[in-house]
Amino acid sequence: MSYADAETGSIEVDFGEDGLVPAVAQDADSGEVLMLAYVSPEALARTRETGEAHYYSRSREEIWHKGNTSGHTQSVREVRVDCDADALLYLVDQAGGACHTGHRSCFHRTVDGENVGERVFDPDEVY
Amino acid sequence: MSYADAETGSIEVDFGEDGLVPAVAQDADSGEVLMLAYVSPEALARTRETGEAHYYSRSREEIWHKGNTSGHTQSVREVRVDCDADALLYLVDQAGGACHTGHRSCFHRTVDGENVGERVFDPDEVY
Repeated sequence: MSYADAETGSIEVDFGEDGLVPAVAQDADSGEVLMLAYVSPEALARTRETGEAHYYSRSREEIWHKGNTSGHTQSVREVRVDCDADALLYLVDQAGGACHTGHRSCFHRTVDGENVGERVFDPDEVY
Repeated sequence: MSYADAETGSIEVDFGEDGLVPAVAQDADSGEVLMLAYVSPEALARTRETGEAHYYSRSREEIWHKGNTSGHTQSVREVRVDCDADALLYLVDQAGGACHTGHRSCFHRTVDGENVGERVFDPDEVY
């Protein structure tokens, strides 16, 4: 079941076998794709409750409030779901940079190894 | 190993245990996020060889040349990798619409069920 609920209109996200869906964070103003991470039902609920992006860290196996350590939070303007309801799009206002390397976006390299991204902070000063 | 190779500069993508990485397709001009799908090593190789987006269909368990049936192909201008090299970003010129529902983007609904996307073709006429 992944279609709009007739009563509430809200969409039931299909979290699949591992209980996670990929979520893309996009800068709501510039359209820049900032990062891709994974979201559990609880991470989505906290995102909607607080208005700040939460993810699920697969390596640490815990909910992750983005920017909790660095201050580089994401204020979420809108959450979208795709046609199969098994992927999310967070439209966000990104404080600082999304990437732990200091870049604005985690997608700051081409597959050929060229750096095409903007560095906006020094990770040694933040972490 | 997911860092730039010193000789070629190209980045080794970390395809993980299931041999797939999520790939986000973004309109290279408008910045609209069009879809999220999965990519195998062979799908990535074909994308780079042909300049047209290929994915791996998890349900059909086969390589999928996007638009092969509908004509709604994606001409790939650039492939980016994220900081962990376990997600891809395809910057594309999208013919027609990316979504099988006829919408320009698969992310045409908010999680509250509001339709915010543009319908650009009638799927009954295409499929």
